[in-house]
Amino acid sequence: MATLEKARELVDPALHSAVERLDPHTRLVTSYHLGWCDTEGRSLEGNGGKAIRPALALLVGESVCEDPERALAGAVAVELVHNFSLVHDDLMDRDTERRHRATVWSVWGDTTAVLVGDAMLSLAHEVLADSGSAHAAGGSRILAAATRELIRGQSLDVAFEDRDPVADPVPLAECADMAAGKTGALLAVSAEIGALLSGAPAEVCAAYRHFGAELGMAFQLVDDLLGIWGWPERTGKPVFSDLRSRKKTLPVVWALTNGGESGRELARWLRTPPAGADSEEELRHAASLLDRAGARAWVITEARRRVRAGLAALEATGLDQSLRRRFTDLAHFVVEREL
Amino acid sequence: MATLEKARELVDPALHSAVERLDPHTRLVTSYHLGWCDTEGRSLEGNGGKAIRPALALLVGESVCEDPERALAGAVAVELVHNFSLVHDDLMDRDTERRHRATVWSVWGDTTAVLVGDAMLSLAHEVLADSGSAHAAGGSRILAAATRELIRGQSLDVAFEDRDPVADPVPLAECADMAAGKTGALLAVSAEIGALLSGAPAEVCAAYRHFGAELGMAFQLVDDLLGIWGWPERTGKPVFSDLRSRKKTLPVVWALTNGGESGRELARWLRTPPAGADSEEELRHAASLLDRAGARAWVITEARRRVRAGLAALEATGLDQSLRRRFTDLAHFVVEREL
Repeated sequence: MATLEKARELVDPALHSAVERLDPHTRLVTSYHLGWCDTEGRSLEGNGGKAIRPALALLVGESVCEDPERALAGAVAVELVHNFSLVHDDLMDRDTERRHRATVWSVWGDTTAVLVGDAMLSLAHEVLADSGSAHAAGGSRILAAATRELIRGQSLDVAFEDRDPVADPVPLAECADMAAGKTGALLAVSAEIGALLSGAPAEVCAAYRHFGAELGMAFQLVDDLLGIWGWPERTGKPVFSDLRSRKKTLPVVWALTNGGESGRELARWLRTPPAGADSEEELRHAASLLDRAGARAWVITEARRRVRAGLAALEATGLDQSLRRRFTDLAHFVVEREL
Repeated sequence: MATLEKARELVDPALHSAVERLDPHTRLVTSYHLGWCDTEGRSLEGNGGKAIRPALALLVGESVCEDPERALAGAVAVELVHNFSLVHDDLMDRDTERRHRATVWSVWGDTTAVLVGDAMLSLAHEVLADSGSAHAAGGSRILAAATRELIRGQSLDVAFEDRDPVADPVPLAECADMAAGKTGALLAVSAEIGALLSGAPAEVCAAYRHFGAELGMAFQLVDDLLGIWGWPERTGKPVFSDLRSRKKTLPVVWALTNGGESGRELARWLRTPPAGADSEEELRHAASLLDRAGARAWVITEARRRVRAGLAALEATGLDQSLRRRFTDLAHFVVEREL
């Protein structure tokens, strides 16, 4: 997709030069995590993530002013914060694989995963502060506020695990609030920081922020769907992985709330995990309960509704037709990627 | 000590209002770690740390301009970065006690410790960015660079653990470099950020930075000494704790390098840990080897030399007699605290 490829071309060199600042061990592990090399430091091609967040920051920057370089430090910073959160999340969730590769903690241990995540978070602010932008402090401020939201969301996500689906169910609004923190906040700030660094006025920044927040919710909905029914060959995550860990994702919480008899059966299944691992058959059964409850259809409808709301928020920015088209394309790429 | 008490009065309200921004769970755990409350959130008095870093930032600020408030955001930020590193270090080192209290990970688990540390690191930059200072971005930049150094130092410290004291000894210069990263960098930036935010010219910032770096090394030397021979009732750490974990601290590395026969015996002792825990007698024996090697005497001499070098660096700042006296008092407080 052109917008993503263009963003990669601009962001990659800047991200590389930021990572260069790290000490040799931290740099090696960060480079591995970003898909640039193997565990021994041998160069690899094309293993990185999709870099949706920096692409959004740059697209917004381009929409606000002619010079895309003005948003570049913001694009690098949001990618670093995103990757900091992945390294720490993988550690906390004890996930052993991401993008078909062993996770940082599983290769180098917990200490390295903690330190490498810390280093990326700190580096994000260093890149902003070093950009020479008149809006560097403003960018740092909104990025830190988004990081607080991200931590709040992750903290709620973990707390949800201990809640009994019958005695103490998670209301759908609470689950959506968790997702808004965990995923929405960083996409919102990716759009906003692109606008802010490019000199947009407050109401334009707010409109882009709104777009990013809605896109983030749509993204999370699709991610939850892929975590249940997904294709491992595309996502790098095992099939049924979120069911296996009995995660209270949006489709699950929706089914528990609105799924009638299938929802109640799902609740019973969730609260009685087996002694060992679930069998493939058990997991397929749970997924079919979600399907019968209507959760898959709801996720798709809700994700598309979020995208429409986000695109509507862009009205306030006075974008021309061709730029508007690129936002629509990016949103569709994010949401329709595997639907 | 007047300088520390005065700093506490200024920093505490600002630190409280920064922590207020965190979500309820993260806020509770942060408040507990900072000594403000127990694990249930019930208020406590006088359990905090000594707050040497913010005191240094504020003392420098006061020395540069009349308004101590200009350095306040920097003082809060360095205290947050220091505490972020403590929470993550306790987790990585699996230390169960700090300041006579259970550590965060040991009460709330690993996930909370990771997230709470992350939140404090991010909050440090938010406080700076939110300060309205014309030098906010500059402050963020040097704070992030110091955090990189801190991570480099911690990463080296961990790597030293795997090195055999005979086949692959750590040279003293490498050990000092590790300590400069782990402890020196944050004290250096504490002094520098106070000067920078208060509008000092570059050469004055550099002089204060130099003072902070030397003070940091002196501090680490004394800390290493306390970690071996220390008084648990004062430090909150068990006696011989660094020997028990066979840490390659400065006095140990010095003894291995310069300690003659006692040093060689210490090397043999270090490389042959017992199956279970060391007996009290074994540890006392190892400590006496360090003593006989001359390591304790070296640490004291070296710490005092560092303080003198730091105070000499202050010449370039043109401080008057009475302010100079306060720097001397602070340095002596840090270094002579238990010697």
